[in-house]
Amino acid sequence: MPMEFSSKLLENAVDEVSMLPGIGKRTALRLVLHLLKQPTGQTLRLSESLVALRETIQFCSNCHNVSDLALCEICSNPNRDGSIVCVVEDIRDVMAIENTSQFRGKYHVLGGKISPMDGIGPSDLYIDSLVAKASSGVVKEVIFAMSSTMEGDTTNFYIFKQLEALPVKMTTIARGISVGDELEYADEVTLGRSILHRIPFENSLKNSE
Amino acid sequence: MPMEFSSKLLENAVDEVSMLPGIGKRTALRLVLHLLKQPTGQTLRLSESLVALRETIQFCSNCHNVSDLALCEICSNPNRDGSIVCVVEDIRDVMAIENTSQFRGKYHVLGGKISPMDGIGPSDLYIDSLVAKASSGVVKEVIFAMSSTMEGDTTNFYIFKQLEALPVKMTTIARGISVGDELEYADEVTLGRSILHRIPFENSLKNSE
Repeated sequence: MPMEFSSKLLENAVDEVSMLPGIGKRTALRLVLHLLKQPTGQTLRLSESLVALRETIQFCSNCHNVSDLALCEICSNPNRDGSIVCVVEDIRDVMAIENTSQFRGKYHVLGGKISPMDGIGPSDLYIDSLVAKASSGVVKEVIFAMSSTMEGDTTNFYIFKQLEALPVKMTTIARGISVGDELEYADEVTLGRSILHRIPFENSLKNSE
Repeated sequence: MPMEFSSKLLENAVDEVSMLPGIGKRTALRLVLHLLKQPTGQTLRLSESLVALRETIQFCSNCHNVSDLALCEICSNPNRDGSIVCVVEDIRDVMAIENTSQFRGKYHVLGGKISPMDGIGPSDLYIDSLVAKASSGVVKEVIFAMSSTMEGDTTNFYIFKQLEALPVKMTTIARGISVGDELEYADEVTLGRSILHRIPFENSLKNSE
């Protein structure tokens, strides 16, 4: 059903908002009408924050994480162990791992995963800079922390091949039954892997390294 | 779970976007990261369209619909019948009714409905201007087209009381079984009303007035 707008300004705003992923015309109209009912300041703050972000944001020159500085807080922190590098797909994964407070190394944000279907090849990702980092001699261990999907596995394997010849230990985060999950509802592959990669019981008693 | 942002700019943008209704921090982050991957132009167009809308939008002085002019296209259209006024809650209802192409009168947008729970009383809505319009002698019929909820019914009744003494016909849109709906799944109140307010069969053969 086409929408007939009584205002060109309204139509433009709805069109722009509905270009965001997962936001249709109807939701966009609801959001825009909400802004119209709020003080003008809210719309100005929203717009300014988006423009400020888009125009002045930087990406860390070492790990490619979003940062306000040329080197992000994690990479410039002397208490973080630069010999362990955790490879992740995007900055949301960095935030998720940081929230666990279990990792004291540094990150390497690839900026996506290899996905021929979406036209994303190895050259579209920050793989060269990872190889350079691993070749420098500082890095002792690379942890793969990609999504457990076909694209994630492909990316892991591609990087594995690139780093194979280097004196670097390569590990991957543990896959298994989620804490709090019922065994009977777990999928077979996950349950299978969790048995295959079982750990000494006393290790499971530790909550952190 | 609190989010730890690696960038203050990113945090600001996520905070502002998550002030929109129905958008949480996680969705806001997804939207903002999407904008970071798009050309800067998209963010600029989005921001400009919102600011332009918020700062220069007008509301029709006659019907209170959103408009780029002091008098909206419907109110200034000489082919629309000003003697019939359809009272709706907000401009989305105007769009919905316009889409049916079944109404050739004009509208009156209340800007909400009476809802003591949300602190919205009659004085927060454009009821006075409706009473003034109805008193002018031009309006012959007022159609109530509010949502079929407690608040909608309260609003209808309040307006009915205000207009009661005036020589104006008051009607309400028909409630009944939706076109295409199975009778057995209809709720009792709707089905009851649809029997009570049955119409001559030959009238049902007409698709428009």
